[in-house]
Amino acid sequence: MNRFWTAGLSVLLLNASAIADDGPLRGFTAESAAEQRQWEEKLRALPNADNLRESMRLLSARPHHVGSAYGKQNAEWILARFKEWGWDAQIETFGVLFPTPKGRLLEMTEPKRFVAALDEPALAIDPTSGQKTEQLPTYNSYSVDGDVTAPLVFVNYGLPEDYDRLERLGISVKGAIVIAKYGGSWRGIKPKVAAEHGAVGCIIYSDPKDDGYFVDDVFPKGPMRPANGVQRGSVMDFSASWPGDPLTPGIGATTDAKRLDLKDAKSLTRIPVLPISYGDAQPLLAALGGPMAPVEWRGALPISYHVGPGPAKVHLKLAFNWDIKPVHDVIARIPGSSNPEQWVVRGNHHDAWVNGAEDPISAMVVMLEEARALGELVKQGWRPKRTIVFAAWDGEEPMLLGSTEWAEAHAAELREHAVAYINTDGNGRGYLSMGGSHTLERFINDVARDIKDPETGLSVKERRRLAGLARVSAEDRAELRNRHDLRIDALGSGTDFTAFLDHLGVPSIDLAFGGEDDGGIYHSIYDDFYWYTHFSDTDFAYGKALAQTVGTAVLRLADADLLPFEFTGLADTVKMYLKELRTLADNQRNAIVERNRQIEEGVFRAAEDPRRKTVAPTHEEVPPFLNFAPMENASVALERSASRYEAALAKAWAAGVPAATIQKLNQGLKDTERLLTDDAGLPRRAWYKHLLYAPGVYTGYNVKTVPAVREAIEAKAWAEAETEIARVAKALMAESDFVNGAAVELERHGSR
Amino acid sequence: MNRFWTAGLSVLLLNASAIADDGPLRGFTAESAAEQRQWEEKLRALPNADNLRESMRLLSARPHHVGSAYGKQNAEWILARFKEWGWDAQIETFGVLFPTPKGRLLEMTEPKRFVAALDEPALAIDPTSGQKTEQLPTYNSYSVDGDVTAPLVFVNYGLPEDYDRLERLGISVKGAIVIAKYGGSWRGIKPKVAAEHGAVGCIIYSDPKDDGYFVDDVFPKGPMRPANGVQRGSVMDFSASWPGDPLTPGIGATTDAKRLDLKDAKSLTRIPVLPISYGDAQPLLAALGGPMAPVEWRGALPISYHVGPGPAKVHLKLAFNWDIKPVHDVIARIPGSSNPEQWVVRGNHHDAWVNGAEDPISAMVVMLEEARALGELVKQGWRPKRTIVFAAWDGEEPMLLGSTEWAEAHAAELREHAVAYINTDGNGRGYLSMGGSHTLERFINDVARDIKDPETGLSVKERRRLAGLARVSAEDRAELRNRHDLRIDALGSGTDFTAFLDHLGVPSIDLAFGGEDDGGIYHSIYDDFYWYTHFSDTDFAYGKALAQTVGTAVLRLADADLLPFEFTGLADTVKMYLKELRTLADNQRNAIVERNRQIEEGVFRAAEDPRRKTVAPTHEEVPPFLNFAPMENASVALERSASRYEAALAKAWAAGVPAATIQKLNQGLKDTERLLTDDAGLPRRAWYKHLLYAPGVYTGYNVKTVPAVREAIEAKAWAEAETEIARVAKALMAESDFVNGAAVELERHGSR
Repeated sequence: MNRFWTAGLSVLLLNASAIADDGPLRGFTAESAAEQRQWEEKLRALPNADNLRESMRLLSARPHHVGSAYGKQNAEWILARFKEWGWDAQIETFGVLFPTPKGRLLEMTEPKRFVAALDEPALAIDPTSGQKTEQLPTYNSYSVDGDVTAPLVFVNYGLPEDYDRLERLGISVKGAIVIAKYGGSWRGIKPKVAAEHGAVGCIIYSDPKDDGYFVDDVFPKGPMRPANGVQRGSVMDFSASWPGDPLTPGIGATTDAKRLDLKDAKSLTRIPVLPISYGDAQPLLAALGGPMAPVEWRGALPISYHVGPGPAKVHLKLAFNWDIKPVHDVIARIPGSSNPEQWVVRGNHHDAWVNGAEDPISAMVVMLEEARALGELVKQGWRPKRTIVFAAWDGEEPMLLGSTEWAEAHAAELREHAVAYINTDGNGRGYLSMGGSHTLERFINDVARDIKDPETGLSVKERRRLAGLARVSAEDRAELRNRHDLRIDALGSGTDFTAFLDHLGVPSIDLAFGGEDDGGIYHSIYDDFYWYTHFSDTDFAYGKALAQTVGTAVLRLADADLLPFEFTGLADTVKMYLKELRTLADNQRNAIVERNRQIEEGVFRAAEDPRRKTVAPTHEEVPPFLNFAPMENASVALERSASRYEAALAKAWAAGVPAATIQKLNQGLKDTERLLTDDAGLPRRAWYKHLLYAPGVYTGYNVKTVPAVREAIEAKAWAEAETEIARVAKALMAESDFVNGAAVELERHGSR
Repeated sequence: MNRFWTAGLSVLLLNASAIADDGPLRGFTAESAAEQRQWEEKLRALPNADNLRESMRLLSARPHHVGSAYGKQNAEWILARFKEWGWDAQIETFGVLFPTPKGRLLEMTEPKRFVAALDEPALAIDPTSGQKTEQLPTYNSYSVDGDVTAPLVFVNYGLPEDYDRLERLGISVKGAIVIAKYGGSWRGIKPKVAAEHGAVGCIIYSDPKDDGYFVDDVFPKGPMRPANGVQRGSVMDFSASWPGDPLTPGIGATTDAKRLDLKDAKSLTRIPVLPISYGDAQPLLAALGGPMAPVEWRGALPISYHVGPGPAKVHLKLAFNWDIKPVHDVIARIPGSSNPEQWVVRGNHHDAWVNGAEDPISAMVVMLEEARALGELVKQGWRPKRTIVFAAWDGEEPMLLGSTEWAEAHAAELREHAVAYINTDGNGRGYLSMGGSHTLERFINDVARDIKDPETGLSVKERRRLAGLARVSAEDRAELRNRHDLRIDALGSGTDFTAFLDHLGVPSIDLAFGGEDDGGIYHSIYDDFYWYTHFSDTDFAYGKALAQTVGTAVLRLADADLLPFEFTGLADTVKMYLKELRTLADNQRNAIVERNRQIEEGVFRAAEDPRRKTVAPTHEEVPPFLNFAPMENASVALERSASRYEAALAKAWAAGVPAATIQKLNQGLKDTERLLTDDAGLPRRAWYKHLLYAPGVYTGYNVKTVPAVREAIEAKAWAEAETEIARVAKALMAESDFVNGAAVELERHGSR
């Protein structure tokens, strides 16, 4: 229960609930809340900074990528810990396609020869940086093999709009090798869009503007990327196809699974891709001619950034071992007492690109502390109502291999049993970031209200709210001051909730602290114990806070009498998305109208500098107005149902709701996220079933909300946009109908 | 005459006037307009690119700063040209304080020793860059002598708001030497504000982000500042005191003028100041510790920008020769035929910091072509109605020495006779920029409508209007599409119109082409013939266009039957300024209210990163609402009078206005700018008399419109703000009264 809906009860209760952690708890009766509070207090007292530090030291002691000896050893060590703490645990292994480099060459052949080092040097001060024989070389996994020589073109972040800009500059990348900066979107978008524009190869480098010396001192003096640091990472084209094993879409990659031929694996890139350091990039960029890059494209290297093409010409040669490797997921359970058939799933991956102290070990050790603490509570007599499943995933880095294969292998059970999935994937210092399904917005806000920020002593929710006031617009300040909950982010992808939320419709949450922990060691050999304990959450205070946050969330979800899903937050969010979509369509229409007008007026001819020739845009058809009415109607219906449910729940809860009714409601509530999915999936990517959230086809990790509608508008596919508006509206109406039905059910009890 | 006010006449006329250069001309009768058009055509045919090139080659052949042998030689050469072209010309000489370096030392003493080169190297490819013996060393004129050693602090651009930010970071510059980037404001603001905050020395450097490799290739490959290029320049504190000779404020610095003692010269700096290159700055900045500089402060050097203070400690030692030097103004006249007592003054300076091909020779040669062309017209039988005065100023660079002393020496005559002053000070390639008195907004727009852009063939007005559409907000686009005239900029300072406009109240215009001619050679040895003819208006097409523009303006002002001042543009501008002032006051009040609220809420405590300590702001008194009513009333009155005058003029002009009435109106019209001044001058800087325009005390060259009111609000001097609102209102009311009286006079004729 919470401040907002106690308002309907009494002034006395309202006052009482102003004190954060002894007010009512949503979904708990007054009696069960009191007991729950005690267990939560106990749980939050258990996480220990020394344990976090020592587990990190051990798990990040050696490189532990997919298929490595130390990765397997880590999985076995984690398994042993679960068992030691009383969990029912085992390892589930899948066989996945995981390419590793056989040969890598990048050289400039014109106007002068330069061979890229493609090597991250060991640092004397940093003990694990010298484990050369075990480190994976710097590369992008799921790049195809290739051997290409071509003129170079600088394409900024390599996003679709960057190519529009190049077109205005009269520059084509057809037959060229592009060099793109890391950032601006997920890395895999860069080779994908480059290939769509006819490029034959793609280089990605980390500009010092984005995570190097421009931001702060570089490692080891400071936390940022040194001149030869390289970001490894997957470039699998997962958002247009599917994540997980490229050869077993939609099914678990078990030993006997039917596998695609490599040539049919749609999620590989179409052109060879290689990541490099800014040390290696500078000579290439400095050798470019052609027009100056647009101002906002320029980075922090001490050069004039030109676009090309050429005179720089480069030779890129890549070959990979296309092996099937094992991934070892560690799965552990505490069975539920009264509702064992409802599962609360919580996960974090254990594999890394190299030593991965920050990514993922900083949160892997948090999950282990939660597991130890929950084991401790069981020893003290606590039994969760629902079954708790903890998962230490393998193979997240190449593209969510372990979690996706497990989720696909157990799809039917999960659709039936999973109540929620809670994910973490690294932790830092600062503010709690909360992403997730909006039916859990209230729930996770309530948890955040009960966790103390180690730096300020405020609740982590209040710290974020107050600090937000200093950063946002006047309009957003009003919302921060007046809205009951902090808005949570919609989830895109890039970590292990993806199969749960997008493929199975399991309501998901993703949590981490951050914002005070800038770093430039992501996916490099420098993401290690030395870096983390010098520059991030050095005293593991936020590691403890994250264990308290996720531990509390797991405990509360596992124990609640009534599942704490809430729908006014969802309705408010849907309304906001609808407004965004209308604005997107309007802005797009207005921009085209204005540009057509400017073409007619002769603006582009007038603004042309004859020494800097450009290509004027051409007249474009003005987009039609779209029929948003079905979504408008559904949005309003959902808003009404959600309010009705809250009112009915408050009244009924005060009067007392019979266990059978609660049980019946829970059965329905656990399926509400799945009402927002459609088995047919999104257009051209059927693996993605959720109609409100998906990774964008052209953004990768970044979410597109109401994806089918939004991407249809962006792609100017008007007929598809209207079809998809109707499909989304239908799902929202189904959601509204369920919520309304639940309210009717509760009203029967409230009136007694 | 023009499209807007012909609307009152007839549809036929309106259609006719749509063709730019054979419609009516404001201030000319139909008869005189036809003749005027012919003379203007002839004039515009005369400017010649080869002349421009050869004059530039000669005038920029050697360094020609104040007091140099070549500067004197240039003045004499210019004098000879005027005489050759039939002008009545002579040199007027003044004696001014002009310090030059005797000794310059900048060294870092901690944490390691580094001695700044303070030298711009000669380039083999650039023939004049090696004239070492004649070049002025790199320095800031009117810096005081000094010998200081202190820790270094990086202060961004060194503006007042930068020190507010430092205060939030807990950093004081008391006893420190500051290093500031060039840019963001006029250079002299940097040592001034540094001294106000207790700094003991000031270094100014050119960051490559602002005019070096970040912008484009560096010289000689491209137009931008090379690593060892330095921007010289004056740091005289002119905007808080007076420009011109520091020893003779308000009077001409003639031989027998009474001079202040050097110690009483208020316009010198309070601390020593030295400009350096980014080559010299990098080791100093790289040696700074302390917090990272705020993101928007960071430049393009390949370092992490820290603020300090220290550990870098620097030693700055400067000594100057404090000599009186001669400045040679070349003054030339063509006497007026019917109205010799009304002068049209046009000027450009001839002195430079070094060779100065761009600044000022690129426009000096334009003025010479105008002079040649006007001399040619005289030979063909043309006689201007009014007297034309051309002035080639000396000593502009140190701070408007030649023009200010001449204007002060001839103050009484100029107040009586000067109808307008037209200035240029360098020319480039691209768009016509127009600044000036808003009573001349219509006039200069009409001129711009009649000049052909060499790159597009559009009128220079239409090119700027159309290209503007591609760059501005939707609101500003509507104005560009609907307003009769392009808005002209209000004038601040930084060139020779200052004494005319701000001290004497002579309506002024400043013109130049630019926007397609980026460069980083300003005030360096590389601003020379080689640079200009490789990177700027290389074929002198815009030199010709500027000669056509200014030549047309001079001819038209000199010949108009009725002076073409127009007041609806002024009224509209005043209304806009009033809105800006209200918004400024409102925003200031709202910001303080919001900040106070955030302090009470605990926002700053919540947002504090304990590893990056900051100082929270303190509660501030909420500003009162100000009484803008007097200005509101005056603004509305002026708007009404201006419209009435336009209507009356259109009617009367069609009916025919007797010469005596025109003569009487002209007498009044020429004084309308002076009605906007007050002899008492602005608060604490009585030399500045104009109530609508002034260089800002804390912006230098950049204008503050309605300066006394605006700066009082900015300084939170509420009582002063209200007093000044009343004073401005009174002047506007006097302007309105005159305009209304003129309308009444004209209405008598329109009704006949």
